[in-house]
Amino acid sequence: MIRLHVAAEIAQDVALGLDHGQSHYLTSVMRRAVGDEVLVFNGRDGEWRATIEVAGKRGVILRPTVQERPQAFGPDLDLVIALVKRSRVETIVEKAAELGARRVRLVVTERTNAERTRIDRLSAIAAEAAEQTGRLDVPEIVEPVKLAKLIEGWDASRRLLFCDEAGDAKPVLAALDGAPPAPWAILIGPEGGFSPAEREALRNLPYATPATLGPRILRADTAAISALTLWQAAQGDWRSLEVS
Amino acid sequence: MIRLHVAAEIAQDVALGLDHGQSHYLTSVMRRAVGDEVLVFNGRDGEWRATIEVAGKRGVILRPTVQERPQAFGPDLDLVIALVKRSRVETIVEKAAELGARRVRLVVTERTNAERTRIDRLSAIAAEAAEQTGRLDVPEIVEPVKLAKLIEGWDASRRLLFCDEAGDAKPVLAALDGAPPAPWAILIGPEGGFSPAEREALRNLPYATPATLGPRILRADTAAISALTLWQAAQGDWRSLEVS
Repeated sequence: MIRLHVAAEIAQDVALGLDHGQSHYLTSVMRRAVGDEVLVFNGRDGEWRATIEVAGKRGVILRPTVQERPQAFGPDLDLVIALVKRSRVETIVEKAAELGARRVRLVVTERTNAERTRIDRLSAIAAEAAEQTGRLDVPEIVEPVKLAKLIEGWDASRRLLFCDEAGDAKPVLAALDGAPPAPWAILIGPEGGFSPAEREALRNLPYATPATLGPRILRADTAAISALTLWQAAQGDWRSLEVS
Repeated sequence: MIRLHVAAEIAQDVALGLDHGQSHYLTSVMRRAVGDEVLVFNGRDGEWRATIEVAGKRGVILRPTVQERPQAFGPDLDLVIALVKRSRVETIVEKAAELGARRVRLVVTERTNAERTRIDRLSAIAAEAAEQTGRLDVPEIVEPVKLAKLIEGWDASRRLLFCDEAGDAKPVLAALDGAPPAPWAILIGPEGGFSPAEREALRNLPYATPATLGPRILRADTAAISALTLWQAAQGDWRSLEVS
């Protein structure tokens, strides 16, 4: 069944108007009509089954009928990525949504060629991926800041998995073995890596755990997906029931 | 330094001609000239430092000088993927190269919308990714076959990690815990999943280990990258030195 993320409140029998884009998608692209059902979620009220009540020129109106799942969130995991090529940032945002990150923060580093980012576009990609992947919330996309400023404002109770290509850090699974539970963040550098000064600063943070991602050089999108996967498998909601 | 994959033999002081595409890339795109050095590998003779000896209209000729690394291979890991949308197959091939798969096999399943595949194009993508990621070989891309035929010709000494969205399989790390070492293959289904008959057949194979990739629905490219990552971390060359 089609799943749609909406901004508005969802409550039983309270009419829910869709915006132009979603109305068009539902009726013209997916050919749904009055009486058909969809699933809706907004990150607050859980997932609801809703019936198309009006499908006209002025858009679609839904009528939520039954809550299918109460609101729930995955583990408290942020992904922090250096700004890379726009297409790779977009891939990373899509994958972060599939892999259960709660936020994606963008960071400007010394070796970043900061292309302009459109947060609204990245948020739309995150929402669409959340619709497809079945989660009940949408990752928040946070405006880019410089690395120094990110560190300055860091909440030290959030551990930082610092994916460090250079040096002698342990592999991610070994680095996370016995580590404290969430909240965590994963930090992925630009494709040229962090500068020596940045690495030094990151390694000295008391809340940082450096880790490596294997013996080959990875593109930023691959590194992000691999690190999210390993964190979920070791610390997050991919763990086996026996382990958790 | 620029790394190039070549088909020809590489030996010290034996002139090595580059094809038109690589010659153009080296001189016109990357602006390299006579006397500059590059790295070359062919999957057999290791990695060599080579000097540009001729850079003319008829192409580039290199002179290999020093072997930088002897030939080596990663773990014996195949990735078997159902044919999905061409752009996603291309992403998967790129990522399989970065994540150390030795072969990528394409398979046609009941729910596959088999778009035409161009093996030569996929092989070129694999070679380019191998150049960037630093490995000494290029993953082989194997022509699509039907799932039944793939199973019929399977070498039972190769274990199969069957990524099964439906059902009650263990998470990948738990499923691989204590499993025998390589050779292995990872099987990723189409985005509509395997049919019930296919799942049943796959689950009954004596060499198959079913496993799940977390609680969310993943696109085929995400599933492939996540499964490759977890296999490398648990069984392959991403393991910590202490564990291996």
